[in-house]
Amino acid sequence: MDYFDIQVEKIVERALEEDLGWGDVTTDNLIPEDARAEGTVVTRDEGKVCGVGVIEMVFSRVDPETQVQVVKEDGEDMHPGDVIARVQGSAGSLLRAERVALNFMQRMSGIATVTARYVDAVRGLPVRIADTRKTAPGLRVLDKYAVRMGGGLNHRLHLGDGVLIKDNHLALMGLGGGRLKEVVSRMRRHSPRILSVEVEAKSVEEARAAAEAGADIILLDNMDAGTMKAAVDAIAGRALIEASGGMSLERVRSVAETGVDFISVGALTHSVRAMDIALDIRPA
Amino acid sequence: MDYFDIQVEKIVERALEEDLGWGDVTTDNLIPEDARAEGTVVTRDEGKVCGVGVIEMVFSRVDPETQVQVVKEDGEDMHPGDVIARVQGSAGSLLRAERVALNFMQRMSGIATVTARYVDAVRGLPVRIADTRKTAPGLRVLDKYAVRMGGGLNHRLHLGDGVLIKDNHLALMGLGGGRLKEVVSRMRRHSPRILSVEVEAKSVEEARAAAEAGADIILLDNMDAGTMKAAVDAIAGRALIEASGGMSLERVRSVAETGVDFISVGALTHSVRAMDIALDIRPA
Amino acid sequence: MDYFDIQVEKIVERALEEDLGWGDVTTDNLIPEDARAEGTVVTRDEGKVCGVGVIEMVFSRVDPETQVQVVKEDGEDMHPGDVIARVQGSAGSLLRAERVALNFMQRMSGIATVTARYVDAVRGLPVRIADTRKTAPGLRVLDKYAVRMGGGLNHRLHLGDGVLIKDNHLALMGLGGGRLKEVVSRMRRHSPRILSVEVEAKSVEEARAAAEAGADIILLDNMDAGTMKAAVDAIAGRALIEASGGMSLERVRSVAETGVDFISVGALTHSVRAMDIALDIRPA
Amino acid sequence: MDYFDIQVEKIVERALEEDLGWGDVTTDNLIPEDARAEGTVVTRDEGKVCGVGVIEMVFSRVDPETQVQVVKEDGEDMHPGDVIARVQGSAGSLLRAERVALNFMQRMSGIATVTARYVDAVRGLPVRIADTRKTAPGLRVLDKYAVRMGGGLNHRLHLGDGVLIKDNHLALMGLGGGRLKEVVSRMRRHSPRILSVEVEAKSVEEARAAAEAGADIILLDNMDAGTMKAAVDAIAGRALIEASGGMSLERVRSVAETGVDFISVGALTHSVRAMDIALDIRPA
Amino acid sequence: MDYFDIQVEKIVERALEEDLGWGDVTTDNLIPEDARAEGTVVTRDEGKVCGVGVIEMVFSRVDPETQVQVVKEDGEDMHPGDVIARVQGSAGSLLRAERVALNFMQRMSGIATVTARYVDAVRGLPVRIADTRKTAPGLRVLDKYAVRMGGGLNHRLHLGDGVLIKDNHLALMGLGGGRLKEVVSRMRRHSPRILSVEVEAKSVEEARAAAEAGADIILLDNMDAGTMKAAVDAIAGRALIEASGGMSLERVRSVAETGVDFISVGALTHSVRAMDIALDIRPA
Amino acid sequence: MDYFDIQVEKIVERALEEDLGWGDVTTDNLIPEDARAEGTVVTRDEGKVCGVGVIEMVFSRVDPETQVQVVKEDGEDMHPGDVIARVQGSAGSLLRAERVALNFMQRMSGIATVTARYVDAVRGLPVRIADTRKTAPGLRVLDKYAVRMGGGLNHRLHLGDGVLIKDNHLALMGLGGGRLKEVVSRMRRHSPRILSVEVEAKSVEEARAAAEAGADIILLDNMDAGTMKAAVDAIAGRALIEASGGMSLERVRSVAETGVDFISVGALTHSVRAMDIALDIRPA
Repeated sequence: MDYFDIQVEKIVERALEEDLGWGDVTTDNLIPEDARAEGTVVTRDEGKVCGVGVIEMVFSRVDPETQVQVVKEDGEDMHPGDVIARVQGSAGSLLRAERVALNFMQRMSGIATVTARYVDAVRGLPVRIADTRKTAPGLRVLDKYAVRMGGGLNHRLHLGDGVLIKDNHLALMGLGGGRLKEVVSRMRRHSPRILSVEVEAKSVEEARAAAEAGADIILLDNMDAGTMKAAVDAIAGRALIEASGGMSLERVRSVAETGVDFISVGALTHSVRAMDIALDIRPA
Repeated sequence: MDYFDIQVEKIVERALEEDLGWGDVTTDNLIPEDARAEGTVVTRDEGKVCGVGVIEMVFSRVDPETQVQVVKEDGEDMHPGDVIARVQGSAGSLLRAERVALNFMQRMSGIATVTARYVDAVRGLPVRIADTRKTAPGLRVLDKYAVRMGGGLNHRLHLGDGVLIKDNHLALMGLGGGRLKEVVSRMRRHSPRILSVEVEAKSVEEARAAAEAGADIILLDNMDAGTMKAAVDAIAGRALIEASGGMSLERVRSVAETGVDFISVGALTHSVRAMDIALDIRPA
Repeated sequence: MDYFDIQVEKIVERALEEDLGWGDVTTDNLIPEDARAEGTVVTRDEGKVCGVGVIEMVFSRVDPETQVQVVKEDGEDMHPGDVIARVQGSAGSLLRAERVALNFMQRMSGIATVTARYVDAVRGLPVRIADTRKTAPGLRVLDKYAVRMGGGLNHRLHLGDGVLIKDNHLALMGLGGGRLKEVVSRMRRHSPRILSVEVEAKSVEEARAAAEAGADIILLDNMDAGTMKAAVDAIAGRALIEASGGMSLERVRSVAETGVDFISVGALTHSVRAMDIALDIRPA
Repeated sequence: MDYFDIQVEKIVERALEEDLGWGDVTTDNLIPEDARAEGTVVTRDEGKVCGVGVIEMVFSRVDPETQVQVVKEDGEDMHPGDVIARVQGSAGSLLRAERVALNFMQRMSGIATVTARYVDAVRGLPVRIADTRKTAPGLRVLDKYAVRMGGGLNHRLHLGDGVLIKDNHLALMGLGGGRLKEVVSRMRRHSPRILSVEVEAKSVEEARAAAEAGADIILLDNMDAGTMKAAVDAIAGRALIEASGGMSLERVRSVAETGVDFISVGALTHSVRAMDIALDIRPA
Repeated sequence: MDYFDIQVEKIVERALEEDLGWGDVTTDNLIPEDARAEGTVVTRDEGKVCGVGVIEMVFSRVDPETQVQVVKEDGEDMHPGDVIARVQGSAGSLLRAERVALNFMQRMSGIATVTARYVDAVRGLPVRIADTRKTAPGLRVLDKYAVRMGGGLNHRLHLGDGVLIKDNHLALMGLGGGRLKEVVSRMRRHSPRILSVEVEAKSVEEARAAAEAGADIILLDNMDAGTMKAAVDAIAGRALIEASGGMSLERVRSVAETGVDFISVGALTHSVRAMDIALDIRPA
Repeated sequence: MDYFDIQVEKIVERALEEDLGWGDVTTDNLIPEDARAEGTVVTRDEGKVCGVGVIEMVFSRVDPETQVQVVKEDGEDMHPGDVIARVQGSAGSLLRAERVALNFMQRMSGIATVTARYVDAVRGLPVRIADTRKTAPGLRVLDKYAVRMGGGLNHRLHLGDGVLIKDNHLALMGLGGGRLKEVVSRMRRHSPRILSVEVEAKSVEEARAAAEAGADIILLDNMDAGTMKAAVDAIAGRALIEASGGMSLERVRSVAETGVDFISVGALTHSVRAMDIALDIRPA
């Protein structure tokens, strides 16, 4: 983990409070304080490892004396039976940390894995797979980190770090699409220039208008492949192009072939399948 | 939401900080402060509504003057096109709150919906569907609430509110299964009696031993249906029985028919599919 | 301290903030930074030691380089003059930490000591002394830990970890005691089964009704010994029995002799007498 | 409550989290959301009311719609049977808030009451009863507020708001009492003058030296009444005088008669007896 | 305040804790609870108003019943004697909030005012005045907001929202400037494309190299006007240009005339002169 | 730093969150994890060093393995080119911590430096330079620490640690100055005696009245030197005297010569000029 540790430490703290705030009645009462154990984090699933740094934090927050040896780094491939990490320390500490550690790694590896599958599906094409802000509440930085570990690109981290003008904005300003140029230029005038201006388009016409209005990026939302291709042509290289909406693994390559630059996929983070990763513990 | 509001308020606060901590550069600069809007939370998916109380908190934390009118309560059925809630207020406030509100509701409705499917699958049998501690870190109370709204049962909320003695505990105590009785009675002696003692069994033999040791609940972990039936017979009504491990929707009814009392399903919360729920906003 | 450390660290932090948030104007200005000291935590009182782990946290939070050597563990007997722990380190750090450390230990040892007196008073009888939720606000986990160290049993840690149906609940549901059975069964249906259902009874009749309704535990509240005996007979082994209300040290054995299983005593934690424990500091 | 609300709100928040963080499984499942109730906070004990403002915060934090009507203000006398406050609102909200509200008020009224007894014991003499920093960790502001409501005086709120030079400081500076004058003047030079300098004296000689050194206040610690009288004479009006150490209610008047200005009593806050105050709830 | 309220509420909370955490011993003891007052926030200084929304938060956090009437909005001009806002409410509440409210407004108006002076100094030229990350620790969002209210532009809000490659980065990568192209393209590959890549240049040569490497923005650091002009020419419109380093009010116009697009000024926020703004309070 | 570390750690934490909460996109992506660097904190300005302890905290919070070697302690003189500290560690960690560390030290050294200038201006006279509560919100303890390091005196740390009766208080009590004696004695009765009572005077008459009323300290606010001298005479040694209001460096000596005991200067902390201090980083 080289990213965002200040946020991650708090997330780990809360996850431990949530599970361990009232102790572990079983372990606290049965396991002798001096019992030692070692454990192996092992995957029974195929995919990308992600979350090794987070589980190190979990084990060490529960007990700073627990040793964690990383076998596979974040972003590496994993196959059923692979050892991801080894832990060693007080038996009670391993038992107390187990569930929380796995909850993190199972989710993060799930995200990295599915991202990698999308990335594989478009391999060879000049396009990148991006995430969205559809992340689990409170886990944004980890969800986005996992996308990166799967080879994906992060779209906006938070609402404040990118301009995206949608139909809604125009409608709520009391303007139609006809005055988009005015809106884009107003946005540039008011906002730090360092931010690109992205404009959503739902038709070829809107895409062309956005390009003419000077958008840096144009988001083609929920178009079929034919329309998308026409929109790409209408934009004619004047802006970067993002595609979004219903991007299944089956469909993503055909979208990529229309010539868009990014494809954003909400499902990378909003519908995560946990990887089957376990901690095998034995006396040491 | 009648549960756990003190924790939920903090979860909502953090989710908003994460997304809105640096403002909404688009809305802040484009939408007039006095623009009014109304919105409709509408589902395009089939399932159980969950999270209405949370989105009320989200909208009102962003702007206490936003009005939320609940159309469907948590736990009600929803069909594509159904309106779940209506919101009304400052246009900017609706835009700022939108994504966070939906992130909560899409996940929570996803959990409630899949839980309800499991509950439906065992309908008519004297068995209950339970969750696990395999929840998204930091979202435990919401994930478990959603399970209840789907008709499920909550297993341990946190490590401290239930005794569950696993093989690991015995091994780390340096004891074999043969001394389980001693362990169970030691647990009773040390722990508040008000907690039931649950013991994990991986074979018919272990199940029988647990029953003899006086366990209140016996967890049959990762058994096939035949073994499970034998274990149920061996326990012979001396304890409540929980089944867990690889409980797919396809398989769950056959497990239920073995006569167990609870079936716990990690996938209810660890592998959530977000429901497709949107907020349609228009000028008011 | 093997329990609840995540909560305890925050309690210690706050106690230090409260006392040291604006520094120690005397020590900060008079004591040289390189002055070394050693100290002895010594009791002038008779009773049970409790809080050694907490004062370790206090000293180490003020200054990680302070050495604490534990002489007596939590739960051990202490007699006037006994040394409980020795500390060594920067003179200023010992002075700054002193009051907060003692405030914790004096209270916790007070709770453990009085609990042990109640436990002694019923020695030989099959009954346990339990605490209540009448703890100092914010110190619940420490107060309850101290009860355990005195040999007592913890009743509910928090409102969410046990069902206790009182007259108030029935009245506010608009039901009389006559429908208790319905209420108990409704509670079982709605709540995780893993929680026992306790019902409060204020008369022999109510006790009998609770037993018939299927309560797991029956709380006999504020009964004289005769009534209590009659209630125990009426319950006839169908439920565990808790007694509460005005449990003085003088009276507790006669209550125990009625055959109840637990006796809960609010005064263990709501009316604590601090033990006389001091820190003697000298130059090192 | 006109004091320290910013700290008190956090204390209340934590007390509620501690008790209600995982909900109230009984009330949440049994009491209908629309059930209304009213309650009476009534004392069965004799003493001083304290904590009315805090319980208002508790009820309103649990449910802003609960109405609290104050009948007796903090600092007023209370007699068995007196109504202190009336509450009205959702039945569930009253039940959820009950225990935490009472835990505050029982402790605070206990402190105010015993303080008032000390104040009564020295009535007519020009002396004031003061508290110490021996308060329950995390409850300093409330404990000290309650002392004021009982008619007492607050000594240092925290370590940073008063200078108190003890034997320990001199010893750890490597100085004997003989250089006290130098120390006092060094303290004045380094610290904001706005703080008085208090010096601890354990003998008549030390008291005289402190007066000569220019102390503003001299603390006579653990002296018998005769020695104390001699010390008062030796100081001869050159400083204010505080007495401390083993100040029982029986002894306090004889100490007051020696002519000291303040008597500080650790037991006001370190060994609190909770007042017997209850909340009677009924359907409304 | 339409920006970042979630962060600002916490900043206000802490400022109040810092000043009012132990109450206001003067006001708490002298001012009757029912005394009413009204106050006028009035400037004795010339410049730009900023912080009205923050002082509204301060007064309302101290006492939700205080009424604040805004007379001048953030960003408006103020002249000595102008009324900025009127407040009305409990006399004690106004006194308690006064200092904290003014501390915010005096600083924020100071920032807005000096920013406006820089903006005025370059009026008519196609250049914008920008801030830096040299803000008071913990006050970033307010300092940057005040810059906007003075007509300035925000550079990076935090380290994560913009790429800025400096000499240090190249040196620490073990690369010289000669491989800048490789670094820029590596940065694009690894980072979300939505972020522009800015490169620091300390000479005309470096500026040219940065332009050739494909930088979106080039930062000309600490150049004299002649060098800067040459660098602008060398860049030849291939990138936006920022100038920084020792930008005094006297010098800024000559820098602007070299044709740069932004001029960033650390002094806007690191060396703030507080505006002389007071709160006049009188009985109501 | 021997003061207030508990508060300072939180301030450092927040400053880092604010700048690094979303990572450092440049460093995170360009600098190899194993790159090592060393840096020198060097001043280009003349004045007093302050903040060395804080930057140690900053570097160690970002990366506990960074080594910081202090060359100049807080309060020492610094001249252009002087090295204040050396740091060594991971290259990325130094880059990430740089800005936040400097923001602290530049401000704190600025405060210490200007304070030292005021102290120098009155050298030889029996008067001390004091600060006010006009500090940057959230940075009170650091601002006041820096004043001490510059040789100044701290006035009230917070509103609760000193009594200061102003005209406003009298007016809002519905009392004129004529009843000041009554107010002072009421204040003494209600407040801990340990606090001195300070009274503000705006004229010679008010100063005399304050002295007669028994004030311990009298604040002469906004008087010219002649009036101030007359007020000092009128007080005639009956109280300590503080002067405030428009205390420029030019004027302060003439004020000091009137015979006041303290001169308080808001500008020490409300209008800070950041010292020019830099971190030079190179590969190690």
